[in-house]
Amino acid sequence: MLPTIEWRGDHVRVIDQRKIPAKVEWYVCRGYRDVIKAIQTMVIRGAPAIGVAAAMGLALGADGIRTNAYPSFVRQFRKVAELMAAARPTAVNLRWAVDRILRLVESMAGAPVDRIKTAIRRESEAMLAEDIEINRRIGEHGQTLVPPEATILTHCNAGSLATGGYGTALGVIRAAREAGKKVQVIADETRPWLQGLRLTAFELMQDRIPVTVIADNAAGYLMRQKKVDLVITGADRIAANGDVANKIGTYQVAVLAKENGIPFYVAAPLSTIDVRIKSGEMIPVEEREGKEICCFGKRLMGPEGVKAFNPAFDITPAKFVKAIVTERGLIRPPYVRGIGKIFSS
Amino acid sequence: MLPTIEWRGDHVRVIDQRKIPAKVEWYVCRGYRDVIKAIQTMVIRGAPAIGVAAAMGLALGADGIRTNAYPSFVRQFRKVAELMAAARPTAVNLRWAVDRILRLVESMAGAPVDRIKTAIRRESEAMLAEDIEINRRIGEHGQTLVPPEATILTHCNAGSLATGGYGTALGVIRAAREAGKKVQVIADETRPWLQGLRLTAFELMQDRIPVTVIADNAAGYLMRQKKVDLVITGADRIAANGDVANKIGTYQVAVLAKENGIPFYVAAPLSTIDVRIKSGEMIPVEEREGKEICCFGKRLMGPEGVKAFNPAFDITPAKFVKAIVTERGLIRPPYVRGIGKIFSS
Repeated sequence: MLPTIEWRGDHVRVIDQRKIPAKVEWYVCRGYRDVIKAIQTMVIRGAPAIGVAAAMGLALGADGIRTNAYPSFVRQFRKVAELMAAARPTAVNLRWAVDRILRLVESMAGAPVDRIKTAIRRESEAMLAEDIEINRRIGEHGQTLVPPEATILTHCNAGSLATGGYGTALGVIRAAREAGKKVQVIADETRPWLQGLRLTAFELMQDRIPVTVIADNAAGYLMRQKKVDLVITGADRIAANGDVANKIGTYQVAVLAKENGIPFYVAAPLSTIDVRIKSGEMIPVEEREGKEICCFGKRLMGPEGVKAFNPAFDITPAKFVKAIVTERGLIRPPYVRGIGKIFSS
Repeated sequence: MLPTIEWRGDHVRVIDQRKIPAKVEWYVCRGYRDVIKAIQTMVIRGAPAIGVAAAMGLALGADGIRTNAYPSFVRQFRKVAELMAAARPTAVNLRWAVDRILRLVESMAGAPVDRIKTAIRRESEAMLAEDIEINRRIGEHGQTLVPPEATILTHCNAGSLATGGYGTALGVIRAAREAGKKVQVIADETRPWLQGLRLTAFELMQDRIPVTVIADNAAGYLMRQKKVDLVITGADRIAANGDVANKIGTYQVAVLAKENGIPFYVAAPLSTIDVRIKSGEMIPVEEREGKEICCFGKRLMGPEGVKAFNPAFDITPAKFVKAIVTERGLIRPPYVRGIGKIFSS
């Protein structure tokens, strides 16, 4: 599998996910502004992946600060950090990664600025490696939920491309396959960006895991026909009560799974859980431009002047989530207790 | 509003709905095979519209039969009728229209073939005019369900273009507006053919009824945010128990409406109700080519060789339908009784 993001000498390069699968093109980031732009324009997406990108972007940002004085450095660095954290509002991994780097910088107060810059870069490399390891553990825990033969529906892309590598929801599917289970996948195409059709199908076909793409509006039909054994998705932010923000359409899939007696699971690293937020209603939902709905490439598909509403995420209430799969194991309802226990231990 | 379909001298012309709104192009049908092709390739779609098209197609088919002997005529005509009825499997209006023309032909047994041909053409013209009148009545009955101010969500296109004119679900919305109500519409884009983005938005913008398009996967999010007051769709076939076959995705919208306490209504002429069929499970659901999902125009969006599953319709169980709006008034649950009563009266 291709690396989603990596260091190349003094710059960071990112697979341009807007072009997959038609082309595999690298998007080069030489400064932190390039990283912010890559995140905002969907060159890189997926909560864990943009967390790693933010850390690497901060290393580029630190490199660009021309001072040897710690107080001046930290003042400038904090501005860069705030811009990075604000690149997209919904996924909390961005904030989490920025805070982790900020804590590192603060812990080195007074150290030579060059040493701090090196430490930030090393931390960003460590976060990439950790993310892959975390996903492998999510996979190990999550695959215990998968029967020996299973058709698994997933929404959007929570795969290698959405993370440092291996994937969260797709990590569970990969681990089930590695454990010898016979899995096949139904991938919602996931409008408007088609992450399911373009990215999830691409990753699974590379791994020779059978995958069939459907329009988002056909998921319920398949569930009602008993053609889905379980549903698993990733998450962009999970509140302390277990409410899950994820790609627009996740809520619908969860409601339909419940209606049809099919378990709905969420796979995400602990860094996706935002314990400061009590419930999903407090999670900001990004609204993107209507033209992402109305245009295919540059071609307007609807009437001239048509209005569209394009929320990028939705909130799935905890009551629809049968378990949250983390690197520390499964969290089961009631989530307030389960999440509280993990974060206090 | 443009006519969906009309006679022009010795041929029938149809608005090519695949090209709206980019272009308004007429598709000319000189023989019954052209009509079958227009129905199969989505040049014309929508249950009532393809019913009218079938009747006109049969008139073209009758014209092409070269005999003056009734027995030979009727034998050849029945073959044409069977081909026409099989053009698409789900919408029962096609069968209903064919049966109506067949009954006419049988009632004229022994009459001069030329007179029969003229009668078929007149019947097809009458069916077009009737359909518009039926839709106006559906609108009148249906608009009583709409509050003075309402945001109405609809799926696919059940408008003028899906019928002889005025529309079923959009007819209700038009009638509500004509009754002085302040309505605005949320239109599901309706993948893969985008009937919502291309056709429903087009029709409503022409009528200056405010419309906002969303991806199909965002309907639940809006409902949960209390931004939808009621949902109304058309239907392709309704079983005797009230189960509704309609465009893929309708089932999901109905489940989500129920989950969020929003009424879900279906607007359809009585010709859409198939009393010979006990329940929705017996309705054949057309599966179309996967490439309708994977390709935008000629451009493959997914990986080379990707598999897709593309059911064109789904079945909404009657328990999710708050009322069926017909030209004879509202039918309320229990539908077995309500439908039985209308068809026995």
